[in-house]
This record gives sequence, C-alpha cells and structure tokens, in this order.
Amino acid sequence: MGSTFSHYFSSYHQSHHQAKEPERMKKFSNMKYVPLMLFQLILMALFFVFVRYGGEKHHDIRGFEGTHVMIFVGFGFLMTFLKKYAYSALGFNWFLAAIVIQWAFLCQNFYHMQDMKIYATKETILEADIMAATVLITFGALLGLASDLQLLFIAVVEVAVACANFYLVGDIFKAADVGGSIGIHAFGAYFGLGASWALKPHHKKTTTNPPPSTSPTVDLSGPTYVSDVTAMIGSLFLWIYWPSFNSALTTTNSEYQRAVINTYLSLASATVTTFVMSSLVSHNRGKLDMVHIQNSTLAGGVAVGSVCNMHIMAGGAIAIGIGAGVLSVLGYRYLTPRLTKLGVRDTCGVHNLHGMPGIYSGLLSIAFAAIATKEEYGEDLSAVFGAMGGEEGTGRPAMTQALNQLYATLVTIVISVVAGAVTGLFAKLPCFSPLKDKEHYDDDVNWELPE
Amino acid sequence: MGSTFSHYFSSYHQSHHQAKEPERMKKFSNMKYVPLMLFQLILMALFFVFVRYGGEKHHDIRGFEGTHVMIFVGFGFLMTFLKKYAYSALGFNWFLAAIVIQWAFLCQNFYHMQDMKIYATKETILEADIMAATVLITFGALLGLASDLQLLFIAVVEVAVACANFYLVGDIFKAADVGGSIGIHAFGAYFGLGASWALKPHHKKTTTNPPPSTSPTVDLSGPTYVSDVTAMIGSLFLWIYWPSFNSALTTTNSEYQRAVINTYLSLASATVTTFVMSSLVSHNRGKLDMVHIQNSTLAGGVAVGSVCNMHIMAGGAIAIGIGAGVLSVLGYRYLTPRLTKLGVRDTCGVHNLHGMPGIYSGLLSIAFAAIATKEEYGEDLSAVFGAMGGEEGTGRPAMTQALNQLYATLVTIVISVVAGAVTGLFAKLPCFSPLKDKEHYDDDVNWELPE
Amino acid sequence: MGSTFSHYFSSYHQSHHQAKEPERMKKFSNMKYVPLMLFQLILMALFFVFVRYGGEKHHDIRGFEGTHVMIFVGFGFLMTFLKKYAYSALGFNWFLAAIVIQWAFLCQNFYHMQDMKIYATKETILEADIMAATVLITFGALLGLASDLQLLFIAVVEVAVACANFYLVGDIFKAADVGGSIGIHAFGAYFGLGASWALKPHHKKTTTNPPPSTSPTVDLSGPTYVSDVTAMIGSLFLWIYWPSFNSALTTTNSEYQRAVINTYLSLASATVTTFVMSSLVSHNRGKLDMVHIQNSTLAGGVAVGSVCNMHIMAGGAIAIGIGAGVLSVLGYRYLTPRLTKLGVRDTCGVHNLHGMPGIYSGLLSIAFAAIATKEEYGEDLSAVFGAMGGEEGTGRPAMTQALNQLYATLVTIVISVVAGAVTGLFAKLPCFSPLKDKEHYDDDVNWELPE
Repeated sequence: MGSTFSHYFSSYHQSHHQAKEPERMKKFSNMKYVPLMLFQLILMALFFVFVRYGGEKHHDIRGFEGTHVMIFVGFGFLMTFLKKYAYSALGFNWFLAAIVIQWAFLCQNFYHMQDMKIYATKETILEADIMAATVLITFGALLGLASDLQLLFIAVVEVAVACANFYLVGDIFKAADVGGSIGIHAFGAYFGLGASWALKPHHKKTTTNPPPSTSPTVDLSGPTYVSDVTAMIGSLFLWIYWPSFNSALTTTNSEYQRAVINTYLSLASATVTTFVMSSLVSHNRGKLDMVHIQNSTLAGGVAVGSVCNMHIMAGGAIAIGIGAGVLSVLGYRYLTPRLTKLGVRDTCGVHNLHGMPGIYSGLLSIAFAAIATKEEYGEDLSAVFGAMGGEEGTGRPAMTQALNQLYATLVTIVISVVAGAVTGLFAKLPCFSPLKDKEHYDDDVNWELPE
Repeated sequence: MGSTFSHYFSSYHQSHHQAKEPERMKKFSNMKYVPLMLFQLILMALFFVFVRYGGEKHHDIRGFEGTHVMIFVGFGFLMTFLKKYAYSALGFNWFLAAIVIQWAFLCQNFYHMQDMKIYATKETILEADIMAATVLITFGALLGLASDLQLLFIAVVEVAVACANFYLVGDIFKAADVGGSIGIHAFGAYFGLGASWALKPHHKKTTTNPPPSTSPTVDLSGPTYVSDVTAMIGSLFLWIYWPSFNSALTTTNSEYQRAVINTYLSLASATVTTFVMSSLVSHNRGKLDMVHIQNSTLAGGVAVGSVCNMHIMAGGAIAIGIGAGVLSVLGYRYLTPRLTKLGVRDTCGVHNLHGMPGIYSGLLSIAFAAIATKEEYGEDLSAVFGAMGGEEGTGRPAMTQALNQLYATLVTIVISVVAGAVTGLFAKLPCFSPLKDKEHYDDDVNWELPE
Repeated sequence: MGSTFSHYFSSYHQSHHQAKEPERMKKFSNMKYVPLMLFQLILMALFFVFVRYGGEKHHDIRGFEGTHVMIFVGFGFLMTFLKKYAYSALGFNWFLAAIVIQWAFLCQNFYHMQDMKIYATKETILEADIMAATVLITFGALLGLASDLQLLFIAVVEVAVACANFYLVGDIFKAADVGGSIGIHAFGAYFGLGASWALKPHHKKTTTNPPPSTSPTVDLSGPTYVSDVTAMIGSLFLWIYWPSFNSALTTTNSEYQRAVINTYLSLASATVTTFVMSSLVSHNRGKLDMVHIQNSTLAGGVAVGSVCNMHIMAGGAIAIGIGAGVLSVLGYRYLTPRLTKLGVRDTCGVHNLHGMPGIYSGLLSIAFAAIATKEEYGEDLSAVFGAMGGEEGTGRPAMTQALNQLYATLVTIVISVVAGAVTGLFAKLPCFSPLKDKEHYDDDVNWELPE
C-alpha cells in the first residue's frame, strides 16, 4: 500500500517534469491519469491474489440495484445543478465511484479475510457500492473547487480511512448503523469539510491581486433553469431508493420492513417540512428555493438511517423526518454562508444534507439504544444490536450499547475531520494541479466542449 | 377529520388577514404553508396513536420500488413538458405525493383497522403510493392552472374521497380492479375534470377586459425542445414500470405472470398504435406529435389495468392496447380542444390517458367477469374475483360479478366528477390564492428562478 | 411471413402512388405507417392463435425490470446526444422496441413450440426484451442516416434473422453466451455496419453536385452541452443494470452471483480505463471526450458478457474490462474515422461499443471453454455449458465446446454482415423514403417541433 502511493506521487512528478513547454506544463497533460492506471493495475493484481467467488454464501440481497442507481445516477445528477459543471459532475462521479468500488471492496474485506482470502458475493459488492457514497459526499463539498487529480487522490486516501473507521464503528464499538448515517454520511461530509478547509485559497495574495477586469467574469457558481431540472433526476432517484439503501443490509424480515417503512415515512415528512421551511425562510414572499428542495428533502433518509431498523414507531419516523427538514433548511439558509466566510466552502451543502443529519441520527441511535429491551425486540435484538443479543444475561446492557453509539459518533467526526484536513493539505501539492480561482466550476478545464 | 379541515381554513385566513401590505397581501406570503405544517403534525400524531409495525405479516412485495419510481420520477417528469413550469411540475408533484402517501395510508387503512390499530407493512405503504397516483393524475389536469394552495387543498380532500370510493369498489362491490384503472385512473381523471370545470375563469369579465397589450405575452402553454425531452424521462419510466404497477397487488404466481405479460403486451401494441395514429391525424404530412407519444403510449397500461390478471389471452392484451392507442390519440386530437372550449381545461390531457382508458378498462372488466368460469381460472378464481371463489356453489355468479363491475365503474365516475367539482368550487376561495390568467404555467409565481 | 412482407411493400407503394401532389409525394404522408399497422394486426392474430399463458412454469426472474430500463431508457437516452435528433432517438427507439418485442417473442419461441403453442412467461418476455437490444444497436449505427420507414423495415427483417442466428448459436452450436455478447451485441453491430455500408450515398453524384451554399448549413452531426447531459441518462442506466442484464438468464445461485460480480468489476475497470485512455489520446492537453465516456465505459459489460458466468476470477473480470476500455477508446479515436471514409458510417460508434467488444467476448469464451473442467465448475458445469454436463463421460469435451464457441462467433459475424448489407440494399427502395443528405440528423423530418 505505502509503495502504491509513493509510486503515484513520484511517477506523476516525473512525467510532469519531463514536459517543459510553458502552457502544457502549467496545466494537465495527456499523461495525467497514468499513475491512476498503475493503481488500477495494482488493484487487478490484488484481486487476482486475494479474491475468490463466494459461491453459495448468499442470502437474498434486495437493495443492490437501488443502491447502484443512487450511487451512479443519484449522486451524479444531483451534482449537475451548476451552470457549466455537468460533464464534470457526471463524469468524475462515475470515475471516482468506479475506482472506489474496487478499492473499497479490498479495504472493507481486508478486515474480514478467511485464510487470507476474500470471498466475493453480491452482498460484498453492495457494501463496496455503499462505501462509494462516502467519497461522493466528499466530492459534493469540493464540487468545482478541487481538480480531477486532487479528487482522485482524496478519494483513494478517504476510502482507506473510512473503511478503518467503519471497522471501528461496526466491529470494535459494535454500534448499530444500518443505514450508514454515522459511518458513511457523517464521515463523508466531515471529511469533505476538513479537506475543503485545507484547500481554501491563501487570501493574502488574492487581496492584493484582484481578478482582472478584462476577463468576462461570468459567475459559474449558480444553476441554470435546465441544470436545476437535471439535478432533480438525481435528487428524486436518491429519494426513491433510500428505503432500499437503508434496508439493504438488514437480515430478518421484520427488521427489513421496519427499515423500509421508517425510511419511507421519514423521507415523506422531511419533504413536506422542507417545502414549508423553504417558504418560511424565503427572502421573496415565500418563494421556494430549489437548493432546499433538491437536498433537504433527502435529509429525512440520513436522519433516520442509524435507527431505521429499531422500534422507533411510525410516528417517530415522521417526527425524525420533520426534525431533519427543519435542521437542513436552516443549515442551508443560515449556516452555510457563515461557514463559507470562515473558509469552509461546501458547494453542495453536504453539511446540511449529510453532516448534521448524520450526527442527528447518531444522537437518535444513542437514545433508542438506551431504551432497547429484549421484550420489545424479541428475536430481532441481535439483528439490530449485534452485541446485545445472545443467551439471557450474556449480551451487552442497553446503556453500554448507548455509550458505544456515542463513541462511534464522536470518533467518526474526529477521524473524518482530521483525516480530511490532512489529506486536503497533501492535495495542495503541485503534482495534483490545484485549480486557480477562475478555473472553478468550469467544465472547460477538463472536457472538450461542444461549439 | 372535520376539525382538521376547519382548522386549515381558519388558520390560513387568519395569517392572511394579519399581513396587510398591498403587494404581500395580494399574493402568497412566507407563512402560506403553515396550515399544511399543522396538518403534517396532526398526521404524525395519528401515526403515533394508530400505527404499529406489521412485523411478519408480509408476503414478497415485488412492485413497490417500480411503483415508487412511477409516482415520483414518472409523474413528475412527464409534467415537465411546459416551457416554464418544470420546477412546479417536479416540485409540487413531490410535495403533493409526500403529504398524500401519509394521509392516504391512514384513510385507506381506516377501513381495515384491527383492534383500533393499523399494521404497517411494505404492502400497505405500496398501497399508499398507488393512491398517490390519483392525486397526481388530477394535478395533471390542473397543471399550471391551480395555485399551490389550491392543489394542496384539493389533494387532501381528494384522497379522503378516493379512499372511500376505493372501499366501495373493492369491499362493497367486490369489483376486480387489480391495476386500479377504475378506482385510481378514472377517479383521478374525472375528479380533475370536475375540479377544472369548477375552477374555470368567469368569462363575463375577461371578454370586456382583454389581456393588456403592454405585457410581453409569451405563451407559456407549450413545450420547448428540451422540456419535451425531459418529459420523456417521465413517460418512459411510467411505461417501463407499468407491468410492476399492475401486478403489484396480485397474490398467486400465475395471476402475477398474467398481469405482467398482459400489461407488457398491451403497452407495446398501444405504443405502435400511437405512432401510427399520431401520423394519421397529423396536420403536417404525417409528422408525429410529441404529446401523443408521451401520453397515448401509456394508455395501454390503463386500458388493461382492471383485467390484466384475468384470462384475456395474450392476443386479447394486444387488441386492448390497440384500442387504447386509437382512443387516446383521437381524444387528444379531437376531444380535448372541444372540452377546453366548454371550459374544461385539461393541461396534460389526463382524460385521454387516464379517463377514457379507465372507463374502457371498466367496460372490459364487465365483459371478462361475465364469461369467467371456475374451469378456466381454477385456483386463481378467488384471487382474481374475490367474491366468486370459495366452496362450490357459495361464490357469486359471473353475471352478478359483471353487474358489480358495472356499478363500480359508474359509481366511480359519478363520485369523482361530483366531488371534484365541489372541491374545485371550495378551492376558489380567496384563502387558496387562485391564479390570475397571466400567472398560469409560470414557475415565477412560486420559485426563485436563476438569472 | 412472406405474404406479410409483400403486403407491406405493395400496400405502401399503392398509397404512395395515389397521392400525387409534388411536395406531399416526395416525402412522407399521413398514411406512411399504415402497412406497419397491418403488421401489428397480423402479430395480434398470431398471438391469438399460438400464445397461451405459461402458468406456473416460472422461476424467479431477477433481471426483467432492469433490462426493461436498459432497452427503453438506456438505449433511448444514450442516443439523444445529437443536437437535433433527440425526439427521433427517443421516439423511434420506443417505436422500434415496441414492435420488436412482440415480433421477437414469436420468432424466438417459434423454435421451441410445444404442441404448436407458445407458453408466455416472464422469462420469455424478458428474452424478447433482450432481443430488442439487437435492433437498437443497429439503430445506433444508422442514427440520423436512415428514415423511419427504413428503420422499421430493417428492424422487422433483422429480428427474424437474429432469432435464427440465436437458435444456431444456442441450440445447434450450444455455445455459452449468457450475456448475449455474440448473439446480441456483435450481431446488432455488424448487421448495422452491413446496412450502413449498403445505405451509403452514391458519391458520383454528390461530388459533381456539392451542397448548395444558400442553405444555412448548420452541422447537426454533433452534440450540444445539454444533449450530452441527457445522453448520460442513457449511458448510466445501461451501466447500472448491465449486471442484471448479463445475469438475467442464469439459473443457479452461484452462476448468478458470478455473472453479477464479474460484470460489475469489468464495468468498473473499463470505466477507469476509459477515462485514462480518453485523456491519453486527446488532441487537447488531456481533455476528456464525452463520446468515449458515454460509450467505452459500457464496453466492459459487452466484453465480459459471454464469459461472465464462467470461472474467470474476479481479477480476470477486471483485466477483461481494462482490455475493453483500451479497445473501445482506440476504436473511437482511430478506427471510426477510417470506416467513415470507407463509406461505413456509424453514428453512435456501435462498432467500438458492441462490435469489437462482442468479438473480444467471443474469443474469451473460446479460451475459457477450452480450460473448463468438471472439477472447477462442479454442479454448475451444465448450467454454464449445457452440452458439457450430464453423466460422467456423456458431456461434450472442453475442446469441442471451445470449437463451437468459435463457430458461433464466426457464423454470427458472417450472417449479420451479409444479412445487414442485403437488408440495407432493399431498404434503399423508394417506398422506404430514403433521406437526402440535408435531412440527416434532423428531427424536423418526422416531428412537429416547438417554435
């Protein structure tokens, strides 16, 4: 592993130094993705050595197809809302996810090898898909701000850290997090905010050197009418398959149905609340803001994620969704502008969609773990809270479980912010071709454009 | 129930009266959705009191995910065909469906409570999704003509009436209507036409007061090239998942397969017929009309809906689809303009996609019920026609079943038209902020727009 | 059959001759699809006579819904990349597929009739969906170059030939081709290239008669920013459901899982490779080309198609995907321009997405068949290689199977090219209203357009 990365670094640097023509040097070259191709070849070799078919070890996996739609269409199209960044949103979402699902597959199963072998099943590739969400959430924070090479570097590092954190959450703390609100959503968001903080431009220079007035200065940081419509493709498919996502890794039938029903209801009430709140906080006579509609509607799925398979009652699911809608719209309206001023830019507002709702879900999981009883859950107790099950008296007490839910939430936030910031600092190295301000939110940097 | 509505009315009126600045008053305010939020909170309370998890009471539900795509992506994108109403089409489709699936869940299960409790399963939330279609069909008739508050009011009333009618159709008449062509499609369409008639503007004024020539008078009632493409997203996803929709509530394997196969074939032949008919009735050398392609192709799914699980033969399914394509294209070409002149506007032409094909399906169900025999259906007889099954001699005779199919169709049409018209009349109250003519088909009324 | 086609021909000619006004005659008329309607009615009659419900003969069909999305949304939207051909791409994709799924259902099951009856199940309609892909791949080669009547004629002929070839491949050679890379992808592509060659304009005339300078000469053969985004809808849905497509007809659980996992990994590595290669061969400092991203990413699904249920190892699946990405991008960059100069136009580059990767998959199937052993496959041997299973010593030897894989690949290429060329020559008859050069890539020929 270590050698992989040093190789990545050094080999890029080398090709970078060889080409010395001023224009070509300054920005990307045809060779820019060659180090990544080497990484792809190493992944292939690792698969040859370590991965075998899992054969019959398979139970009916219900959520794979829906999760797959979320990762590639959902996240991809949701990020097409910018005026001139749709190719990058769709393309890099796909590129990142395609490399990440292979890499995450290895990182995740590294912790559960049998006889030094990983057994591939539909379930393990579903888990790799789910892990890809972490990277795509981080991409949302950095959308249009980080270069393609920065994104690839960040993605590869993030997956390794996120899988280690996921192991901590699930296997060490044995925390319940069936929808990944702690380990996937909060992690991805805070990793992204950490990286965004690290990548922020040095203001000492920009103040003395304002953008030249000769440039046409079209503001690319906003949407067009059509780009907001294509973003809705992503938003709606994320929303639709969220019950599949949250219930994908459930095992018993009643646990599965609770996860589906609770996620469904939480999303519905978050959606209603988002419309109400967007109108309430509007500058302009109650007019709705598409940013809220595209994003805060989904906060219900994150907020209920860690607890959706618990006995939270259908009414509780609706209450959780209402809270998520309020929290998320207020975040977009009042918190994001303040964070931006503090140098933490967040293009898609992932803090409001994944970060805060993820913590909120973590806090809810503490509360519901604390009141969980064998009487209420019956056979499902060990399905929902692995460590609480088993023979009478051998399982973990409810308060211990609650404490571990707390640890899992706190540790995830700390690890993600710190690792994100450190990764972001490394990503500022010239070999990753950081973008200048005028290159932000612009497909023209990386794509052949029509006309 | 009653108190809920009076509350909605009065509380809105109050907030309305408080703000007296001329501009702000005349049209919407930031508080406009507050009454709806109260309704959402009441729903939450009702869920807390009445709804419990259904646990193991679950059989394999195959059609939920597909139906979910139809409701949120299918209906939403199909209605984006207008020049400047895509935000509203997608947004209000989502908003309405999100409130309706909660409300419909309660209204539907109200008739089947056990010990004053409703048991939530994946099947019952699927049924709530299906009921949402009723409201979205009505929305299609009123697209761009009704204000957001009118739509919300109509949706809440419509669901209560539609669920009562559904109870009549299914539990009193025990009519077969597995794909909901009678209880969902025809109901939604005729409710919408009734409401549209009631909402029509008073012509005495408009004739003496023509639209001022100073206004830029861009006609927003048509499509653009791109909006017709995004509408196809909706149309295609509706088409694709229609076999899942029609078969979602089947129980036996052979019934399920008949429903899938018949719907598939009926849609295919309706699609072929739609292209042929669109070219035949074209004004311009056989050129195709996108309105027909987007809509009449789907009429095959509605037409076969009530009979798709019956023994109609594969050839019969194709014949039904051909009839649907002919009926629907002729409706768009010749009937809709006439209805519009009579004051019954129908923006999406739901009469041609859901209304007439729904009645057509009801008539087919009468015929196929009349010829149904125990010999032909075997074990499936009670799955398809609940009242005809049971021990030899105890079931309802075929002619009685046919008569009840007729009653169900007639009663649905009468109830939906009358209830739609009455609801539409109430929706003209100033508290629902009816739109002026120049505000029709315009996202600018409700949305912050780019630029 | 013969009478159907002669009828099609003659009846069209007739209606063609009746209308003699110069403009109307020269190009389409309102009656142009009437012969197709007759074909639809004949299909209906054949279904009435030959098709019965398959009843309980059904095993759990997992891939139908996903394949359905690929056929109608995937292929349809992928072809919307042209500036002014999105209505035709979506509309004719739908029209062709709707007629083809009925026709293919009969042609395919013609070879497996029982007592002169065809028994319809969810599996047989899935197979009809899969066969529709063949025609849509051919449509991709001819996109914007063939008239609607030419496309319909070609589609009807192609299905009959493709089903015969499919019978040869599967039932005579008993070749393994679970994902249809040989029988569907290669067939569709080479049939299309054959037809394209036949349809190429006569250059003797065009050289002496250049396009008049008075025409506005907008080049319609390229994309717009938005059309490239809508094409990504198709591309992503094809990618997402490709594991469902390739595994749709597997029978055992371990075979199913291998098909899903291998397709998933091959697609992922092909996607990574496509980005790397697109940048490598770029004219412009490593900028990415959307054509590669939309298409070559999918080549991994084709390349692994014939072998995805075999024991190719997870690492092998990744290697296959890498090869597919390299092959496909190089094809787009260097081969397609040369083919175009030779008179074989290929609008969507189906040769690079379906043709070469299909042959590549055929070659791989030869290699993996040659090394297949009973020890490795166990119970699955007869599921994967039908002819190799059975009692010890009764099955076909591995080398014989390999030889038959070779025959299947060669025969498919020869039949498809020849049949495509012959069909293309017939399609040049005036009754199919061939397009003039200036009518290429233009929705205006067939559609009422806004504004």
